[in-house]
Amino acid sequence: MKTVLKSIRKTVVISPGRPTVLIGEKISAAARDDLARALREGDLTLLCKEAEKQVAAGADVLEVNVGAPGVDEVEWLPRTVEAILQAVDTPLSIDTADFEALEAALSAHKELAPEGKPLINSVNGEDHYLKGILPLAAEYEAAVIGMTLDDDGIPETPDGRLAVARKIVERAQATGIPRADVVVDCMALSVSTDPQAGQVTLEAIRRVRDELGVNLTLGPSNVSFGLPERGKLDWAFTAMAIQNGVNCPIVNVGQDRRFIMAIDAILGKDEQGLRFIEDYREEGREGT
Amino acid sequence: MKTVLKSIRKTVVISPGRPTVLIGEKISAAARDDLARALREGDLTLLCKEAEKQVAAGADVLEVNVGAPGVDEVEWLPRTVEAILQAVDTPLSIDTADFEALEAALSAHKELAPEGKPLINSVNGEDHYLKGILPLAAEYEAAVIGMTLDDDGIPETPDGRLAVARKIVERAQATGIPRADVVVDCMALSVSTDPQAGQVTLEAIRRVRDELGVNLTLGPSNVSFGLPERGKLDWAFTAMAIQNGVNCPIVNVGQDRRFIMAIDAILGKDEQGLRFIEDYREEGREGT
Repeated sequence: MKTVLKSIRKTVVISPGRPTVLIGEKISAAARDDLARALREGDLTLLCKEAEKQVAAGADVLEVNVGAPGVDEVEWLPRTVEAILQAVDTPLSIDTADFEALEAALSAHKELAPEGKPLINSVNGEDHYLKGILPLAAEYEAAVIGMTLDDDGIPETPDGRLAVARKIVERAQATGIPRADVVVDCMALSVSTDPQAGQVTLEAIRRVRDELGVNLTLGPSNVSFGLPERGKLDWAFTAMAIQNGVNCPIVNVGQDRRFIMAIDAILGKDEQGLRFIEDYREEGREGT
Repeated sequence: MKTVLKSIRKTVVISPGRPTVLIGEKISAAARDDLARALREGDLTLLCKEAEKQVAAGADVLEVNVGAPGVDEVEWLPRTVEAILQAVDTPLSIDTADFEALEAALSAHKELAPEGKPLINSVNGEDHYLKGILPLAAEYEAAVIGMTLDDDGIPETPDGRLAVARKIVERAQATGIPRADVVVDCMALSVSTDPQAGQVTLEAIRRVRDELGVNLTLGPSNVSFGLPERGKLDWAFTAMAIQNGVNCPIVNVGQDRRFIMAIDAILGKDEQGLRFIEDYREEGREGT
Protein backbone atom coordinates (compact mmCIF):
# COMPACT_ATOMS: atom_id res chain seq x y z
CA MET A 1 0.00 0.00 0.00
CA LYS A 2 1.29 3.47 -0.90
CA THR A 3 0.72 6.65 1.07
CA VAL A 4 1.63 9.61 -1.14
CA LEU A 5 2.41 12.97 0.51
CA LYS A 6 2.96 16.16 -1.48
CA SER A 7 4.15 19.67 -0.83
CA ILE A 8 4.31 22.37 -3.52
CA ARG A 9 7.15 20.73 -5.43
CA LYS A 10 7.92 17.40 -3.82
CA THR A 11 6.25 13.99 -3.58
CA VAL A 12 7.14 11.43 -0.93
CA VAL A 13 5.90 7.85 -1.17
CA ILE A 14 5.58 5.71 1.96
CA SER A 15 5.47 2.00 1.09
CA PRO A 16 6.78 -1.25 2.65
CA GLY A 17 9.26 -2.04 -0.13
CA ARG A 18 10.85 1.41 -0.16
CA PRO A 19 13.49 2.98 2.06
CA THR A 20 12.15 4.17 5.40
CA VAL A 21 10.66 7.70 5.25
CA LEU A 22 11.90 9.96 8.05
CA ILE A 23 9.44 12.36 9.65
CA GLY A 24 11.43 15.07 11.45
CA GLU A 25 10.16 15.55 14.99
CA LYS A 26 11.79 18.83 15.85
CA ILE A 27 9.62 21.71 14.64
CA SER A 28 7.47 21.69 17.74
CA ALA A 29 6.69 24.71 19.86
CA ALA A 30 5.29 22.29 22.45
CA ALA A 31 8.74 20.76 22.88
CA ARG A 32 11.01 23.75 22.31
CA ASP A 33 10.89 26.98 24.30
CA ASP A 34 12.90 28.94 21.74
CA LEU A 35 10.38 28.16 18.99
CA ALA A 36 7.45 29.01 21.30
CA ARG A 37 9.06 32.34 22.21
CA ALA A 38 9.67 33.24 18.56
CA LEU A 39 6.03 32.46 17.76
CA ARG A 40 4.77 34.61 20.62
CA GLU A 41 6.85 37.41 19.14
CA GLY A 42 5.31 36.75 15.73
CA ASP A 43 8.65 35.69 14.24
CA LEU A 44 8.69 32.74 11.84
CA THR A 45 12.37 32.99 10.85
CA LEU A 46 13.57 30.56 13.50
CA LEU A 47 11.00 27.92 12.53
CA CYS A 48 11.94 28.23 8.86
CA LYS A 49 15.64 27.91 9.72
CA GLU A 50 14.92 24.80 11.78
CA ALA A 51 12.98 23.41 8.79
CA GLU A 52 15.95 24.03 6.49
CA LYS A 53 18.32 22.45 8.98
CA GLN A 54 16.23 19.32 9.22
CA VAL A 55 15.85 18.99 5.48
CA ALA A 56 19.62 19.30 5.17
CA ALA A 57 19.94 16.57 7.81
CA GLY A 58 17.75 14.30 5.68
CA ALA A 59 14.15 14.73 6.82
CA ASP A 60 11.70 13.45 4.19
CA VAL A 61 8.65 14.96 5.91
CA LEU A 62 8.50 17.74 8.51
CA GLU A 63 6.31 17.71 11.58
CA VAL A 64 4.79 21.13 12.38
CA ASN A 65 3.36 21.88 15.81
CA VAL A 66 2.77 25.38 17.19
CA GLY A 67 0.88 24.42 20.35
CA ALA A 68 2.35 26.39 23.25
CA PRO A 69 1.06 28.74 25.97
CA GLY A 70 0.44 32.21 24.56
CA VAL A 71 0.38 31.07 20.92
CA ASP A 72 -2.97 31.30 19.11
CA GLU A 73 -2.92 28.12 16.99
CA VAL A 74 -5.81 29.24 14.78
CA GLU A 75 -3.74 32.20 13.67
CA TRP A 76 -0.23 30.72 13.76
CA LEU A 77 -0.64 27.16 12.50
CA PRO A 78 -1.72 28.27 8.98
CA ARG A 79 0.91 31.02 8.89
CA THR A 80 3.62 28.55 9.93
CA VAL A 81 2.46 26.00 7.36
CA GLU A 82 2.63 28.69 4.65
CA ALA A 83 6.07 29.85 5.72
CA ILE A 84 7.56 26.36 5.85
CA LEU A 85 5.94 25.27 2.58
CA GLN A 86 7.69 28.24 0.96
CA ALA A 87 10.99 27.76 2.78
CA VAL A 88 11.51 24.08 1.92
CA ASP A 89 10.25 21.48 -0.56
CA THR A 90 9.46 18.79 2.00
CA PRO A 91 5.87 17.61 2.60
CA LEU A 92 4.41 18.43 6.02
CA SER A 93 2.81 16.58 8.88
CA ILE A 94 0.46 18.97 10.68
CA ASP A 95 0.26 18.26 14.39
CA THR A 96 -2.61 19.80 16.35
CA ALA A 97 -5.56 18.84 18.53
CA ASP A 98 -7.39 22.07 17.66
CA PHE A 99 -9.88 21.37 14.84
CA GLU A 100 -10.30 25.02 13.92
CA ALA A 101 -6.54 25.51 13.65
CA LEU A 102 -6.31 22.30 11.64
CA GLU A 103 -8.92 23.47 9.14
CA ALA A 104 -7.21 26.85 8.78
CA ALA A 105 -3.87 25.10 8.19
CA LEU A 106 -5.32 22.64 5.67
CA SER A 107 -6.98 25.51 3.86
CA ALA A 108 -3.72 27.48 3.75
CA HIS A 109 -1.94 24.35 2.46
CA LYS A 110 -4.55 23.86 -0.28
CA GLU A 111 -4.22 27.52 -1.28
CA LEU A 112 -0.42 27.35 -1.71
CA ALA A 113 -0.26 23.76 -2.98
CA PRO A 114 -3.52 22.91 -4.75
CA GLU A 115 -2.18 19.48 -5.70
CA GLY A 116 -0.54 19.02 -2.29
CA LYS A 117 -1.28 16.39 0.31
CA PRO A 118 -0.17 16.88 3.90
CA LEU A 119 -0.33 14.34 6.72
CA ILE A 120 -2.50 15.12 9.77
CA ASN A 121 -1.08 14.11 13.17
CA SER A 122 -3.39 12.79 14.46
CA VAL A 123 -6.74 11.17 14.77
CA ASN A 124 -7.35 8.37 17.26
CA GLY A 125 -10.17 6.01 18.19
CA GLU A 126 -11.98 8.57 20.36
CA ASP A 127 -15.30 9.63 18.85
CA HIS A 128 -14.50 13.29 19.41
CA TYR A 129 -11.44 13.10 17.14
CA LEU A 130 -12.94 10.79 14.54
CA LYS A 131 -15.86 13.20 14.09
CA GLY A 132 -13.73 16.32 14.24
CA ILE A 133 -10.80 15.35 12.03
CA LEU A 134 -11.82 12.70 9.48
CA PRO A 135 -14.25 14.99 7.60
CA LEU A 136 -11.49 17.63 7.33
CA ALA A 137 -9.02 15.04 6.02
CA ALA A 138 -11.60 13.95 3.43
CA GLU A 139 -12.48 17.50 2.39
CA TYR A 140 -8.87 18.65 2.02
CA GLU A 141 -7.59 15.30 0.73
CA ALA A 142 -5.04 14.87 3.47
CA ALA A 143 -3.60 11.63 4.85
CA VAL A 144 -4.00 10.97 8.59
CA ILE A 145 -2.04 9.31 11.34
CA GLY A 146 -4.31 7.07 13.43
CA MET A 147 -3.11 6.51 16.99
CA THR A 148 -4.23 3.32 18.68
CA LEU A 149 -6.01 4.76 21.68
CA ASP A 150 -9.70 5.41 22.27
CA ASP A 151 -12.11 6.59 24.94
CA ASP A 152 -10.91 3.77 27.22
CA GLY A 153 -7.25 4.80 26.91
CA ILE A 154 -4.35 2.91 25.30
CA PRO A 155 -5.17 -0.81 25.04
CA GLU A 156 -2.71 -2.97 26.95
CA THR A 157 -2.68 -5.81 24.42
CA PRO A 158 -1.69 -6.07 20.74
CA ASP A 159 -5.24 -7.31 20.06
CA GLY A 160 -6.68 -4.17 21.63
CA ARG A 161 -4.46 -1.85 19.60
CA LEU A 162 -5.21 -3.74 16.39
CA ALA A 163 -8.93 -3.33 17.11
CA VAL A 164 -8.59 0.45 17.49
CA ALA A 165 -6.49 0.65 14.31
CA ARG A 166 -9.15 -1.31 12.44
CA LYS A 167 -11.89 0.97 13.76
CA ILE A 168 -10.00 4.07 12.60
CA VAL A 169 -9.32 2.60 9.13
CA GLU A 170 -12.99 1.64 8.75
CA ARG A 171 -14.28 5.02 9.93
CA ALA A 172 -11.84 6.75 7.59
CA GLN A 173 -13.03 4.67 4.63
CA ALA A 174 -16.66 5.38 5.55
CA THR A 175 -15.80 9.11 5.51
CA GLY A 176 -14.32 8.84 2.01
CA ILE A 177 -10.63 8.59 2.94
CA PRO A 178 -8.83 5.79 1.08
CA ARG A 179 -7.31 3.09 3.28
CA ALA A 180 -3.88 3.99 1.90
CA ASP A 181 -4.19 7.44 3.46
CA VAL A 182 -4.37 6.12 7.02
CA VAL A 183 -0.97 5.66 8.65
CA VAL A 184 -1.21 3.81 11.97
CA ASP A 185 0.81 4.64 15.10
CA CYS A 186 0.80 1.72 17.59
CA MET A 187 2.23 4.00 20.30
CA ALA A 188 5.49 3.55 22.18
CA LEU A 189 5.32 3.59 25.99
CA SER A 190 8.19 3.47 28.41
CA VAL A 191 9.59 0.08 29.43
CA SER A 192 10.56 1.68 32.74
CA THR A 193 6.93 1.74 33.87
CA ASP A 194 5.89 -1.50 32.13
CA PRO A 195 8.53 -4.06 31.09
CA GLN A 196 6.07 -5.52 28.55
CA ALA A 197 5.47 -2.15 26.88
CA GLY A 198 8.06 -2.64 24.12
CA GLN A 199 6.87 -6.10 23.19
CA VAL A 200 3.19 -5.12 23.12
CA THR A 201 3.92 -2.28 20.70
CA LEU A 202 6.18 -4.45 18.51
CA GLU A 203 3.57 -7.19 18.30
CA ALA A 204 0.80 -4.66 17.59
CA ILE A 205 2.89 -3.24 14.73
CA ARG A 206 3.43 -6.68 13.23
CA ARG A 207 -0.27 -7.50 13.43
CA VAL A 208 -1.45 -4.17 12.00
CA ARG A 209 0.96 -4.68 9.09
CA ASP A 210 -0.13 -8.29 8.49
CA GLU A 211 -3.86 -7.86 9.06
CA LEU A 212 -4.62 -4.32 7.87
CA GLY A 213 -1.81 -3.84 5.34
CA VAL A 214 -1.49 -0.12 6.08
CA ASN A 215 1.68 1.93 6.51
CA LEU A 216 2.96 2.53 10.03
CA THR A 217 4.56 5.40 11.90
CA LEU A 218 5.93 5.51 15.49
CA GLY A 219 7.70 7.94 17.78
CA PRO A 220 10.18 5.37 19.14
CA SER A 221 11.82 7.59 21.75
CA ASN A 222 8.95 7.29 24.25
CA VAL A 223 10.15 3.74 24.92
CA SER A 224 13.18 4.99 26.86
CA PHE A 225 11.46 7.67 28.97
CA GLY A 226 12.87 7.64 32.50
CA LEU A 227 15.91 5.50 31.62
CA PRO A 228 19.58 6.35 31.09
CA GLU A 229 21.39 6.05 27.75
CA ARG A 230 18.15 6.57 25.88
CA GLY A 231 19.90 6.51 22.50
CA LYS A 232 20.73 2.80 22.78
CA LEU A 233 17.20 1.87 23.84
CA ASP A 234 15.71 4.01 21.07
CA TRP A 235 17.92 2.47 18.41
CA ALA A 236 17.25 -1.09 19.56
CA PHE A 237 13.51 -0.41 19.51
CA THR A 238 13.65 1.41 16.17
CA ALA A 239 15.41 -1.53 14.48
CA MET A 240 12.83 -4.00 15.80
CA ALA A 241 9.89 -1.71 14.98
CA ILE A 242 11.05 -1.20 11.38
CA GLN A 243 11.59 -4.95 11.01
CA ASN A 244 7.97 -5.44 12.12
CA GLY A 245 6.47 -2.89 9.74
CA VAL A 246 7.06 0.73 10.75
CA ASN A 247 8.06 2.59 7.59
CA CYS A 248 7.76 6.29 8.44
CA PRO A 249 8.94 6.84 12.03
CA ILE A 250 8.94 10.29 13.68
CA VAL A 251 12.55 10.79 14.74
CA ASN A 252 15.36 13.17 15.54
CA VAL A 253 16.70 13.04 11.99
CA GLY A 254 20.20 14.35 12.65
CA GLN A 255 20.75 11.74 15.30
CA ASP A 256 18.95 8.72 13.87
CA ARG A 257 19.21 8.93 10.11
CA ARG A 258 22.39 6.91 9.54
CA PHE A 259 21.22 4.20 11.88
CA ILE A 260 17.91 3.92 10.04
CA MET A 261 19.79 3.71 6.72
CA ALA A 262 21.74 0.83 8.28
CA ILE A 263 18.44 -0.87 9.20
CA ASP A 264 17.25 -0.44 5.60
CA ALA A 265 20.49 -1.94 4.29
CA ILE A 266 20.00 -4.99 6.54
CA LEU A 267 16.38 -5.36 5.42
CA GLY A 268 17.28 -5.25 1.73
CA LYS A 269 15.66 -1.84 1.22
CA ASP A 270 19.00 -0.47 0.03
CA GLU A 271 20.53 -2.42 -2.88
CA GLN A 272 24.10 -3.49 -2.02
CA GLY A 273 24.13 -0.89 0.74
CA LEU A 274 24.66 1.74 -1.95
CA ARG A 275 22.63 4.50 -0.32
CA PHE A 276 24.43 3.79 2.92
CA ILE A 277 27.88 3.97 1.30
CA GLU A 278 27.03 7.07 -0.73
CA ASP A 279 25.72 8.86 2.30
CA TYR A 280 28.83 7.91 4.22
CA ARG A 281 31.08 9.27 1.48
CA GLU A 282 29.14 12.52 1.21
CA GLU A 283 29.31 13.21 4.88
CA GLY A 284 32.81 11.83 5.13
CA ARG A 285 32.56 11.01 8.76
CA GLU A 286 32.89 7.97 10.97
CA GLY A 287 30.68 6.89 13.81
CA THR A 288 29.67 3.82 15.72
CA MET B 1 14.37 -25.06 25.94
CA LYS B 2 17.42 -24.65 28.19
CA THR B 3 21.03 -25.13 27.15
CA VAL B 4 23.16 -25.39 30.29
CA LEU B 5 26.90 -24.69 30.03
CA LYS B 6 29.31 -25.27 32.93
CA SER B 7 32.91 -24.50 33.74
CA ILE B 8 34.59 -25.58 36.99
CA ARG B 9 32.58 -23.22 39.17
CA LYS B 10 29.99 -21.49 37.02
CA THR B 11 26.75 -22.44 35.27
CA VAL B 12 25.25 -20.40 32.43
CA VAL B 13 21.71 -21.08 31.20
CA ILE B 14 20.69 -20.14 27.67
CA SER B 15 16.91 -19.91 27.34
CA PRO B 16 14.41 -17.71 25.41
CA GLY B 17 12.91 -16.05 28.50
CA ARG B 18 16.24 -15.10 30.06
CA PRO B 19 18.59 -12.21 29.37
CA THR B 20 20.75 -12.68 26.28
CA VAL B 21 23.93 -14.69 26.94
CA LEU B 22 27.03 -13.05 25.50
CA ILE B 23 29.69 -15.28 23.94
CA GLY B 24 32.94 -13.31 23.78
CA GLU B 25 34.48 -13.54 20.30
CA LYS B 26 37.95 -12.26 21.01
CA ILE B 27 40.14 -15.11 22.23
CA SER B 28 41.00 -16.20 18.71
CA ALA B 29 44.47 -16.79 17.42
CA ALA B 30 42.94 -16.96 13.94
CA ALA B 31 41.82 -13.35 14.24
CA ARG B 32 44.59 -11.83 16.35
CA ASP B 33 48.28 -11.84 15.46
CA ASP B 34 49.43 -11.03 18.99
CA LEU B 35 47.68 -14.09 20.40
CA ALA B 36 49.05 -16.31 17.58
CA ARG B 37 52.58 -15.05 18.26
CA ALA B 38 52.29 -15.69 22.00
CA LEU B 39 51.08 -19.23 21.30
CA ARG B 40 53.98 -19.92 18.93
CA GLU B 41 56.27 -18.84 21.74
CA GLY B 42 54.43 -21.18 24.11
CA ASP B 43 53.16 -18.32 26.24
CA LEU B 44 49.57 -18.52 27.56
CA THR B 45 49.72 -15.40 29.76
CA LEU B 46 48.32 -13.10 27.06
CA LEU B 47 45.37 -15.40 26.33
CA CYS B 48 44.53 -15.63 30.04
CA LYS B 49 44.73 -11.85 30.40
CA GLU B 50 42.43 -11.43 27.40
CA ALA B 51 40.03 -13.91 29.06
CA GLU B 52 40.05 -11.91 32.29
CA LYS B 53 39.49 -8.68 30.37
CA GLN B 54 36.49 -10.11 28.57
CA VAL B 55 34.95 -11.51 31.72
CA ALA B 56 35.36 -8.09 33.33
CA ALA B 57 33.64 -6.57 30.27
CA GLY B 58 30.69 -8.90 30.80
CA ALA B 59 31.27 -12.04 28.72
CA ASP B 60 29.08 -14.92 29.91
CA VAL B 61 30.88 -17.53 27.79
CA LEU B 62 34.35 -17.34 26.21
CA GLU B 63 35.20 -18.51 22.72
CA VAL B 64 38.61 -20.24 22.50
CA ASN B 65 40.33 -20.68 19.15
CA VAL B 66 44.06 -21.38 18.72
CA GLY B 67 44.05 -22.09 14.98
CA ALA B 68 46.93 -20.14 13.42
CA PRO B 69 49.94 -20.92 11.23
CA GLY B 70 52.74 -22.48 13.29
CA VAL B 71 50.48 -23.44 16.21
CA ASP B 72 49.92 -27.16 16.82
CA GLU B 73 46.26 -27.24 17.82
CA VAL B 74 46.43 -30.79 19.17
CA GLU B 75 48.99 -29.62 21.70
CA TRP B 76 47.82 -26.06 22.35
CA LEU B 77 44.03 -26.25 22.33
CA PRO B 78 43.87 -28.47 25.47
CA ARG B 79 46.59 -26.45 27.20
CA THR B 80 44.75 -23.21 26.44
CA VAL B 81 41.43 -24.66 27.64
CA GLU B 82 43.11 -25.72 30.91
CA ALA B 83 44.76 -22.36 31.41
CA ILE B 84 41.58 -20.36 30.78
CA LEU B 85 39.41 -22.67 32.88
CA GLN B 86 41.78 -21.97 35.76
CA ALA B 87 42.10 -18.26 35.07
CA VAL B 88 38.37 -17.42 34.95
CA ASP B 89 35.05 -18.95 36.02
CA THR B 90 33.29 -18.53 32.69
CA PRO B 91 32.17 -21.54 30.63
CA LEU B 92 33.96 -22.03 27.31
CA SER B 93 33.05 -22.42 23.67
CA ILE B 94 35.76 -24.49 21.98
CA ASP B 95 36.28 -23.46 18.37
CA THR B 96 38.19 -25.83 16.10
CA ALA B 97 37.83 -27.82 12.89
CA ASP B 98 40.49 -30.33 14.02
CA PHE B 99 38.78 -33.38 15.54
CA GLU B 100 41.92 -34.62 17.28
CA ALA B 101 42.51 -31.22 18.90
CA LEU B 102 38.83 -31.10 19.86
CA GLU B 103 38.99 -34.48 21.57
CA ALA B 104 42.15 -33.51 23.44
CA ALA B 105 40.51 -30.25 24.56
CA LEU B 106 37.28 -31.98 25.65
CA SER B 107 39.33 -34.52 27.57
CA ALA B 108 41.33 -31.78 29.30
CA HIS B 109 38.06 -30.00 30.14
CA LYS B 110 36.57 -33.18 31.60
CA GLU B 111 39.71 -33.74 33.67
CA LEU B 112 39.62 -30.27 35.25
CA ALA B 113 35.83 -29.93 35.42
CA PRO B 114 34.28 -33.40 35.70
CA GLU B 115 30.79 -31.88 35.99
CA GLY B 116 31.56 -29.26 33.35
CA LYS B 117 29.87 -28.75 30.00
CA PRO B 118 31.55 -26.74 27.26
CA LEU B 119 30.07 -25.68 23.95
CA ILE B 120 31.66 -26.94 20.72
CA ASN B 121 31.89 -24.45 17.83
CA SER B 122 30.94 -26.04 15.53
CA VAL B 123 29.32 -28.86 13.69
CA ASN B 124 27.44 -28.26 10.43
CA GLY B 125 25.37 -30.27 7.99
CA GLU B 126 28.38 -31.75 6.19
CA ASP B 127 28.69 -35.47 6.77
CA HIS B 128 32.37 -35.13 7.58
CA TYR B 129 31.63 -32.87 10.57
CA LEU B 130 28.52 -34.70 11.76
CA LYS B 131 30.49 -37.96 11.88
CA GLY B 132 33.60 -36.39 13.37
CA ILE B 133 32.13 -34.14 16.02
CA LEU B 134 28.76 -35.44 17.23
CA PRO B 135 30.18 -38.66 18.78
CA LEU B 136 32.73 -36.54 20.69
CA ALA B 137 30.01 -34.19 21.93
CA ALA B 138 27.99 -37.19 23.10
CA GLU B 139 30.96 -38.88 24.76
CA TYR B 140 32.14 -35.78 26.60
CA GLU B 141 28.61 -34.41 27.23
CA ALA B 142 29.24 -31.13 25.48
CA ALA B 143 26.71 -28.89 23.78
CA VAL B 144 27.27 -28.05 20.08
CA ILE B 145 26.71 -25.14 17.78
CA GLY B 146 25.14 -26.31 14.50
CA MET B 147 25.85 -24.07 11.53
CA THR B 148 23.31 -24.11 8.71
CA LEU B 149 25.55 -25.14 5.86
CA ASP B 150 26.13 -28.53 4.31
CA ASP B 151 27.97 -30.23 1.45
CA ASP B 152 26.12 -27.98 -1.01
CA GLY B 153 27.21 -24.77 0.77
CA ILE B 154 25.07 -22.23 2.61
CA PRO B 155 21.42 -22.49 1.50
CA GLU B 156 20.14 -19.27 -0.04
CA THR B 157 16.65 -19.53 1.44
CA PRO B 158 15.26 -19.61 4.99
CA ASP B 159 13.68 -22.97 4.08
CA GLY B 160 17.05 -24.37 3.12
CA ARG B 161 18.73 -23.23 6.33
CA LEU B 162 15.87 -24.59 8.43
CA ALA B 163 16.26 -27.95 6.68
CA VAL B 164 19.98 -28.12 7.53
CA ALA B 165 19.25 -27.11 11.14
CA ARG B 166 16.64 -29.85 11.37
CA LYS B 167 19.06 -32.41 9.95
CA ILE B 168 21.73 -31.45 12.52
CA VAL B 169 19.26 -31.60 15.43
CA GLU B 170 18.00 -35.02 14.29
CA ARG B 171 21.50 -36.41 13.77
CA ALA B 172 22.52 -35.07 17.20
CA GLN B 173 19.54 -36.74 18.86
CA ALA B 174 20.30 -40.01 17.06
CA THR B 175 23.85 -39.78 18.45
CA GLY B 176 22.54 -39.37 21.99
CA ILE B 177 22.81 -35.60 22.29
CA PRO B 178 19.68 -33.99 23.74
CA ARG B 179 17.92 -31.50 21.50
CA ALA B 180 18.52 -28.80 24.13
CA ASP B 181 22.26 -29.18 23.62
CA VAL B 182 22.16 -28.09 19.97
CA VAL B 183 22.47 -24.34 19.49
CA VAL B 184 21.77 -23.31 15.89
CA ASP B 185 23.69 -20.61 13.97
CA CYS B 186 21.74 -19.43 10.89
CA MET B 187 24.85 -17.64 9.57
CA ALA B 188 25.23 -13.95 8.83
CA LEU B 189 26.49 -13.02 5.36
CA SER B 190 27.34 -9.57 4.09
CA VAL B 191 24.56 -7.42 2.66
CA SER B 192 27.19 -5.78 0.45
CA THR B 193 27.40 -8.90 -1.73
CA ASP B 194 23.73 -9.87 -1.46
CA PRO B 195 21.14 -7.28 -0.41
CA GLN B 196 18.78 -10.10 0.65
CA ALA B 197 21.38 -11.69 2.95
CA GLY B 198 20.17 -9.99 6.13
CA GLN B 199 16.53 -10.83 5.58
CA VAL B 200 17.22 -14.47 4.72
CA THR B 201 19.16 -14.95 7.95
CA LEU B 202 16.52 -13.11 10.03
CA GLU B 203 13.73 -15.20 8.57
CA ALA B 204 15.71 -18.43 9.04
CA ILE B 205 16.25 -17.52 12.72
CA ARG B 206 12.54 -16.92 13.25
CA ARG B 207 11.62 -20.21 11.61
CA VAL B 208 14.23 -22.27 13.47
CA ARG B 209 12.94 -20.78 16.74
CA ASP B 210 9.27 -21.40 15.87
CA GLU B 211 9.66 -24.81 14.25
CA LEU B 212 12.57 -26.44 16.10
CA GLY B 213 12.36 -24.60 19.44
CA VAL B 214 16.13 -24.68 19.96
CA ASN B 215 18.38 -21.89 21.18
CA LEU B 216 20.18 -19.74 18.62
CA THR B 217 23.57 -18.12 18.29
CA LEU B 218 24.92 -15.81 15.56
CA GLY B 219 28.06 -13.85 14.77
CA PRO B 220 26.23 -10.71 13.62
CA SER B 221 29.26 -8.75 12.45
CA ASN B 222 29.64 -10.67 9.18
CA VAL B 223 26.57 -8.79 7.94
CA SER B 224 28.55 -5.57 7.55
CA PHE B 225 31.66 -6.98 5.87
CA GLY B 226 32.85 -4.61 3.14
CA LEU B 227 30.73 -1.67 4.32
CA PRO B 228 31.58 1.50 6.25
CA GLU B 229 30.32 2.26 9.77
CA ARG B 230 30.03 -1.42 10.54
CA GLY B 231 28.95 -0.76 14.13
CA LYS B 232 25.59 0.70 13.06
CA LEU B 233 24.86 -2.17 10.69
CA ASP B 234 25.90 -4.72 13.31
CA TRP B 235 23.71 -3.17 15.98
CA ALA B 236 20.68 -2.89 13.69
CA PHE B 237 21.09 -6.54 12.69
CA THR B 238 21.73 -7.68 16.28
CA ALA B 239 18.50 -6.04 17.53
CA MET B 240 16.46 -7.69 14.77
CA ALA B 241 18.18 -11.08 15.22
CA ILE B 242 17.55 -11.11 18.98
CA GLN B 243 13.93 -10.11 18.40
CA ASN B 244 13.62 -13.14 16.07
CA GLY B 245 15.15 -15.65 18.47
CA VAL B 246 18.93 -15.37 18.79
CA ASN B 247 19.71 -15.64 22.51
CA CYS B 248 23.46 -16.26 22.72
CA PRO B 249 25.23 -14.19 20.03
CA ILE B 250 29.00 -14.25 19.56
CA VAL B 251 30.04 -10.62 19.94
CA ASN B 252 32.69 -8.10 20.84
CA VAL B 253 31.48 -7.85 24.43
CA GLY B 254 33.15 -4.57 25.38
CA GLN B 255 31.59 -2.85 22.41
CA ASP B 256 28.16 -4.50 22.23
CA ARG B 257 27.14 -5.39 25.78
CA ARG B 258 25.22 -2.23 26.72
CA PHE B 259 23.38 -2.23 23.42
CA ILE B 260 22.32 -5.85 23.93
CA MET B 261 21.15 -5.00 27.47
CA ALA B 262 19.06 -2.25 25.86
CA ILE B 263 17.57 -4.82 23.45
CA ASP B 264 16.72 -7.08 26.42
CA ALA B 265 15.07 -4.16 28.23
CA ILE B 266 12.90 -3.49 25.15
CA LEU B 267 11.98 -7.17 24.87
CA GLY B 268 10.92 -7.42 28.53
CA LYS B 269 13.88 -9.63 29.45
CA ASP B 270 14.96 -7.06 32.02
CA GLU B 271 12.26 -6.13 34.55
CA GLN B 272 11.73 -2.34 34.63
CA GLY B 273 15.09 -1.91 32.92
CA LEU B 274 16.71 -2.60 36.29
CA ARG B 275 19.75 -4.48 34.97
CA PHE B 276 20.24 -1.73 32.42
CA ILE B 277 20.06 1.04 35.06
CA GLU B 278 22.27 -0.83 37.52
CA ASP B 279 24.88 -1.47 34.89
CA TYR B 280 24.77 2.18 33.89
CA ARG B 281 25.28 3.30 37.49
CA GLU B 282 28.16 0.91 38.03
CA GLU B 283 29.98 2.05 34.96
CA GLY B 284 28.89 5.63 35.46
CA ARG B 285 29.27 6.61 31.86
CA GLU B 286 27.10 7.99 29.10
CA GLY B 287 27.00 7.11 25.43
CA THR B 288 24.61 6.73 22.53
